[in-house]
Amino acid sequence: MNNAQDHAFTLDEIARRLGARLVGDGTRRVSGLATLSDAGPEDITFLANRAYLKFLPDTRAAAVLLHPSHADDCPTACLTMDNPYLGYAELSALFDPLTARDAPGIHPTAVVSASASLGKGVQVGPHAVIEDGARLGDRVIVGPGCVVGTDSVIGEGSRLHANVTVCHGVVIGKRAILHSSCVIGGDGFGFAHDGSRWHKIAQLGGVVLGDDVEVGSCSSIDRGALGDTVIGDDVKIDSQVQIAHNVQIGDHSALAGCVGIAGSTKVGRNCMLGGGVGLSGHLTLCDGVQVTGMSLVTNSIHKPGVYSSGTGAMSNALWRKNAVRFKQLDDIVKRLTRLEKKQRNR
Amino acid sequence: MNNAQDHAFTLDEIARRLGARLVGDGTRRVSGLATLSDAGPEDITFLANRAYLKFLPDTRAAAVLLHPSHADDCPTACLTMDNPYLGYAELSALFDPLTARDAPGIHPTAVVSASASLGKGVQVGPHAVIEDGARLGDRVIVGPGCVVGTDSVIGEGSRLHANVTVCHGVVIGKRAILHSSCVIGGDGFGFAHDGSRWHKIAQLGGVVLGDDVEVGSCSSIDRGALGDTVIGDDVKIDSQVQIAHNVQIGDHSALAGCVGIAGSTKVGRNCMLGGGVGLSGHLTLCDGVQVTGMSLVTNSIHKPGVYSSGTGAMSNALWRKNAVRFKQLDDIVKRLTRLEKKQRNR
Amino acid sequence: MNNAQDHAFTLDEIARRLGARLVGDGTRRVSGLATLSDAGPEDITFLANRAYLKFLPDTRAAAVLLHPSHADDCPTACLTMDNPYLGYAELSALFDPLTARDAPGIHPTAVVSASASLGKGVQVGPHAVIEDGARLGDRVIVGPGCVVGTDSVIGEGSRLHANVTVCHGVVIGKRAILHSSCVIGGDGFGFAHDGSRWHKIAQLGGVVLGDDVEVGSCSSIDRGALGDTVIGDDVKIDSQVQIAHNVQIGDHSALAGCVGIAGSTKVGRNCMLGGGVGLSGHLTLCDGVQVTGMSLVTNSIHKPGVYSSGTGAMSNALWRKNAVRFKQLDDIVKRLTRLEKKQRNR
Repeated sequence: MNNAQDHAFTLDEIARRLGARLVGDGTRRVSGLATLSDAGPEDITFLANRAYLKFLPDTRAAAVLLHPSHADDCPTACLTMDNPYLGYAELSALFDPLTARDAPGIHPTAVVSASASLGKGVQVGPHAVIEDGARLGDRVIVGPGCVVGTDSVIGEGSRLHANVTVCHGVVIGKRAILHSSCVIGGDGFGFAHDGSRWHKIAQLGGVVLGDDVEVGSCSSIDRGALGDTVIGDDVKIDSQVQIAHNVQIGDHSALAGCVGIAGSTKVGRNCMLGGGVGLSGHLTLCDGVQVTGMSLVTNSIHKPGVYSSGTGAMSNALWRKNAVRFKQLDDIVKRLTRLEKKQRNR
Repeated sequence: MNNAQDHAFTLDEIARRLGARLVGDGTRRVSGLATLSDAGPEDITFLANRAYLKFLPDTRAAAVLLHPSHADDCPTACLTMDNPYLGYAELSALFDPLTARDAPGIHPTAVVSASASLGKGVQVGPHAVIEDGARLGDRVIVGPGCVVGTDSVIGEGSRLHANVTVCHGVVIGKRAILHSSCVIGGDGFGFAHDGSRWHKIAQLGGVVLGDDVEVGSCSSIDRGALGDTVIGDDVKIDSQVQIAHNVQIGDHSALAGCVGIAGSTKVGRNCMLGGGVGLSGHLTLCDGVQVTGMSLVTNSIHKPGVYSSGTGAMSNALWRKNAVRFKQLDDIVKRLTRLEKKQRNR
Repeated sequence: MNNAQDHAFTLDEIARRLGARLVGDGTRRVSGLATLSDAGPEDITFLANRAYLKFLPDTRAAAVLLHPSHADDCPTACLTMDNPYLGYAELSALFDPLTARDAPGIHPTAVVSASASLGKGVQVGPHAVIEDGARLGDRVIVGPGCVVGTDSVIGEGSRLHANVTVCHGVVIGKRAILHSSCVIGGDGFGFAHDGSRWHKIAQLGGVVLGDDVEVGSCSSIDRGALGDTVIGDDVKIDSQVQIAHNVQIGDHSALAGCVGIAGSTKVGRNCMLGGGVGLSGHLTLCDGVQVTGMSLVTNSIHKPGVYSSGTGAMSNALWRKNAVRFKQLDDIVKRLTRLEKKQRNR
């Protein structure tokens, strides 16, 4: 798909918006953004990763956004910035067809409670439901099929894509982006056992999302048992993530797809959790912790750095042998220790 | 969020409902439930875990629910019970704002088939769809945006939160709680290969959920290929869980977030699966099996107990070395065995 | 559940449709399909796996579909085929109640844009939303609560079950089956960091699904950053799967539940990923790769075959010892190497 034709900008305009230095003809217009190898003569492109430097000489793009150190290698107009990847982020917003299309208004099929309060320029899509006492800030966009529960608050400029569920008593900050079918504020998983069966513990807390939070499609952030589940400012959460009750995530942390965090665990600021990472409950991860994909963390981490667990893939034939040996590992060490003793006693 | 003000009870009332023994002024009223450290003078709290005993002397709560052995250490009124965590579960229901708010009735935007049958006091939310032949028991609550498929049955007192999908021909017992965006009865994953491409196997079975089952947000329970996927009574399933076709789960088992169970596996009664656990297909786990978080189970388990796999997180630098060694593990054992032989032959 | 009574066929009819050879009375009618052990005298059954051969002598079925080599052991009428599992797939379609029930038409509560184009025989369910410029091919079925975004295309004969979200600018081929609450075309997870906070990279690409693709419930296929996420023909994707931006999956590959694939990874044709498998980003897996359940793949794979990682479950007591030893593995090998040197120097 290519929605690039919806927008066109001169290189001068782009340089001004990005604060970039332009080398080349500022009156040339570009109407699309593409990769170095895919870009055509109507497109602007960027170079932010040295691995793609090899594509620079042959690019057909009208202009390339890149680091000043690569300007001499650029066969066409260029815009230079110290952080071209950041420039790419700004370019992507310029060329985003979604930003152009939104028209405020409440669709006639939406069900909006008389006791809900809606700010200026709010858009509520077809079949969306806004329950009693909910408050939507200015310019909030609620997509088709979304449900915003009783007494929940959505901060200004936030967008809920289609079929999002925000349960009752949830507080969402400004400029949130919630993707389709994510659920904010479903019950946490709490039960007391009487010796023979489970008794539900009603989940009386809420969920509080800071400003600039993004949540991917089909992700779940559960409400607190007592007290809230708290997601800090500028936290980015990918698709298929599970965040259990009373978890706390510090500002600017990023969680990749399929991460699961068990109840009451605290993740610090500026942490990064790779895809499929699992954190046990009641842990504390300090600021600046990175955990690589599919690692299991069962103890708190008090020192910034990169952490990992598991084993990488190998041929199944080799793996079968090694996995059996893993089950014998403690015995293997005992055998080794015995040998060492004999050696020493000689 | 704090909905505690919606409810107020005297300590005498609470003691009577919980069957607890009260020490203190029974006429005092409490209007909220909070943790030991957060509770204020309008709140009741509880102590169910010795780790929190340190907060007891300084609690500001009006009353504390605790074990009789801690009564002497309590600076305020107390209610004693042998299982205070169970008492907490009952308290949480008392203070649950959801229970107070529900008003029966069919929202005018709901689409309810003329051939569906609805019990007494049923509530169907905005934009919900009840298809042909579906039967909802007394006091069933169907949230906004839910779909209940053709010929499905929902037992009395069950609640479907927003945007739940119950596909056709599914049977759900009494008092079920289904959280937002979960899907009960999507197709199992079955295909036959003809040597060059896949042919779909229509999934002709259904899903049967017993009584008192809870299913978390965004979880999937797939319908059987032939015969049903069967979830026993009092089974508790967290968010982001995948249960494949023809799985059977015994009564009172609990599955934490992100668990995945492959086709036709049978999990016994009173089992507990930690977050992210994976069970291969066609296995049998006997009653009383616990599996710790993110473990992979590829063989049946015939003895109750706790099972685990995987490795815990360590620094990435150390992990890289060890993960490489894991690939050499079988060779390492061979080297060790050679050394042992030489030793013996000496 | 048993919808089998909706259909009845003579054994002659079935043999003709399947291209099977019938041994027995061709006028006998069957009205259901069941397993060897569950089938009654109104049912047809099949034998496709030797493990179930033991149930053949006692089957109560009217007829059994099986390989010619088992015909002599069959106590009742039989239909023989070289690939009876493939025959079972065809039988399952015959007995599928869903195929009988669909009636075309646009439900009056559906919201269909005037600029959308709908083919012949299209069915749009209650509360579904078809946005501007969307194009639905002939006989497309859109279930209740689905949203088809602006300018998206759904190929002829495709079915969207309830509450599916297809975002804007997505292209879906013919005969797709999308299960409830899956999301096709949510944003990929892309951000640039400015040293203190994240800047969103608008996801300007789309998603392209080939023909005959199936996607399970609650799965996510994210749209590309620049360029598209591309799923080939006849790719089968189970429930709870996460496919990140710009991933490419080759024709005929199958992904089991809870798989997660990070950005820009390319999976070849005829690959099979077991449940919970994780693939890191920017990898290439060649054609014909199989990865067993819950394995982590962090490097490209250039040779067809079966690959694995991780360790199988054992008792927690044994696991605790071995998991500790895993952290010492590199040191253990150093100890072994020292011993070997001493041995050699003797």
